[in-house]
Amino acid sequence: MKTRAAVAMQAGQPLVIEEVDLEGPKAGEVLVEIKATGVCHTDAYTLSGADPEGLFPTILGHEGAGVVLEVGDGVTSVQPGDHVIPLYTPECRQCEYCLSGKTNLCQAIRATQGQGLMPDGTSRFSLNGRMLHHYMGCSTFANHTVLPEIAVAKIHEDAPFEKVCYVGCGVTTGVGAVINTAHVEPGANVVVFGLGGIGLNVIQGARLVGAGMIVGVDINPARKGIAESFGMTHFVNPKEIEGDLVAHLVELTGGGADYSFECIGKVDVMRAALECCHKGWGVSTIVGVAGAGEEISTRPFQLVTGRKWQGTAFGGARGRTDVPKIVEWYMKGKIEIDPMITHVLPLERINEAFEMMHEGTSIRTVIRF
Amino acid sequence: MKTRAAVAMQAGQPLVIEEVDLEGPKAGEVLVEIKATGVCHTDAYTLSGADPEGLFPTILGHEGAGVVLEVGDGVTSVQPGDHVIPLYTPECRQCEYCLSGKTNLCQAIRATQGQGLMPDGTSRFSLNGRMLHHYMGCSTFANHTVLPEIAVAKIHEDAPFEKVCYVGCGVTTGVGAVINTAHVEPGANVVVFGLGGIGLNVIQGARLVGAGMIVGVDINPARKGIAESFGMTHFVNPKEIEGDLVAHLVELTGGGADYSFECIGKVDVMRAALECCHKGWGVSTIVGVAGAGEEISTRPFQLVTGRKWQGTAFGGARGRTDVPKIVEWYMKGKIEIDPMITHVLPLERINEAFEMMHEGTSIRTVIRF
Repeated sequence: MKTRAAVAMQAGQPLVIEEVDLEGPKAGEVLVEIKATGVCHTDAYTLSGADPEGLFPTILGHEGAGVVLEVGDGVTSVQPGDHVIPLYTPECRQCEYCLSGKTNLCQAIRATQGQGLMPDGTSRFSLNGRMLHHYMGCSTFANHTVLPEIAVAKIHEDAPFEKVCYVGCGVTTGVGAVINTAHVEPGANVVVFGLGGIGLNVIQGARLVGAGMIVGVDINPARKGIAESFGMTHFVNPKEIEGDLVAHLVELTGGGADYSFECIGKVDVMRAALECCHKGWGVSTIVGVAGAGEEISTRPFQLVTGRKWQGTAFGGARGRTDVPKIVEWYMKGKIEIDPMITHVLPLERINEAFEMMHEGTSIRTVIRF
Repeated sequence: MKTRAAVAMQAGQPLVIEEVDLEGPKAGEVLVEIKATGVCHTDAYTLSGADPEGLFPTILGHEGAGVVLEVGDGVTSVQPGDHVIPLYTPECRQCEYCLSGKTNLCQAIRATQGQGLMPDGTSRFSLNGRMLHHYMGCSTFANHTVLPEIAVAKIHEDAPFEKVCYVGCGVTTGVGAVINTAHVEPGANVVVFGLGGIGLNVIQGARLVGAGMIVGVDINPARKGIAESFGMTHFVNPKEIEGDLVAHLVELTGGGADYSFECIGKVDVMRAALECCHKGWGVSTIVGVAGAGEEISTRPFQLVTGRKWQGTAFGGARGRTDVPKIVEWYMKGKIEIDPMITHVLPLERINEAFEMMHEGTSIRTVIRF
């Protein structure tokens, strides 16, 4: 079949809208009509060429929502008509990782996904006979895409696509980091570095679990208002702090953060996030993705005196199990999404989404098909 | 009163045996006759002058066992005749840290302890009228010492002093790191870097909790035999490995360590210990103490893909609660101590203990009074 897609022909170039060829689902795969997709920093990172694992040409996009149109042989967990969110972290429920109960990093299709291919080692997408790579196992910048069965989460059929597509990455990453990875408990003090599309979700995750102080740190004062609306109780602009930011945060929180989250991807901020943690028990979780080859560092004394350093991917969420729950939470008003979707654009204007992201004028732009 | 002690007059000089003056216990304090004390790397570190917090003149030693001779006003938890182990990490059971349930780092007397003083801001020790600093709140290189009540653990009266003194630091640090900090579960694969007085105790802690593979890593082949006797199942000598040590350990453990422990104090080893952990869930615990100002580093990708980096002090043990238990475990044969005590010397020969430590010919030397 033919479908309309935004194609990344090569790194550093704007996406081009094309009618691409899409093969139907093979065994264990599903064809999904994408109804909406968010545009995330990770898409921009790969498009920029900075991602050493980036492959071109490709169809980017990994934060979508849509409807199953067709299923391949052997597919049992979803059927045509089901509403789904594609999962860049699948959940096979059978591999060592899924069965460990300790991680969400299902490895069932990792090798081929990393090569931009479906599990059988081929691509379903092509343009004028030239193979296009899948991206993060999703490729949601296309009106239709093919996904492995284990990489779709069935969601509530009344959930609005142009809102809950955000659960496919940003919402789950932020809320999940609080709940699944850090296990923040009621009353705990939380410090969140970076109030973008991930940080705001960390903040509402902290509110959801009944955190005490929820401190947001950002150099953009324009983020204060919206962060407060998601539950931030204290705002710190590092540019307005005299002296050491870490010392300021330790004082503000009465001894340090019980939990801190780095939602930017800067290694110096990751260090500050660890070191502002409370002696004895503070846990710092890295959510942001640093540039290739960059390193974090600190004095081991920080750890020996009781701080813990960890990271999270996709909020520690098991996609097929947890994503539907987060969609339910949205439907019931336990979390908010709408105010974070600052722009909705048609596919033809997708390059504007990247421009606004770079300018910092959007929180999340959603492409509506 | 007078008591015999090994005094560190200044950094880098051998200890000198002196009859020092010791004031009796004030309110909330106890006088303890030290019967035996281990000599630990931390004593050597401070004596060397490398410890930026070292204070001189002082009476070193923090790994002792003895008998309460006298108690000050208000002391209720111990009485004369009780057998005790001094605690460099006290347990007041009332401060924010003790009550958190998340850490053993009681802060009740931290400030004065760091200044080499008793909680009232003075020292009980002097030599020819010159104040001698307490060390780590213990000063067990003296036949008698005064300790805060919250810094003594009452132990089984049949426990042999010259064995269980080791529970005052090394045994608890190693066994506790496994049980209290890492929470190693049965069947888990463990990698231990450094098979000295701490690493061997990590190994027997891993055996105690039913770990699967227990891999020991040391450049000293002479440690293989004793480590095996404590439960090590696989020995790796980095000098005998072709290629990358981390890759070797990941392969040996079938994907990486579920838990790793750094028991040396070298920042490059700390990095290797983290990076040999299993993707998705491996936890690396820093037990060793690095040199002043040294830093650990890694790519944040190591954490984002599920590894955790943490540290431990005194094995995460609450001294008054957990130390008596570990002594009981020794009495019941659940853990071993005797084979690790490779040398027993009288106080007059204490400097030989430091020499053997530097040469690597001892595991633990105990001074018997």
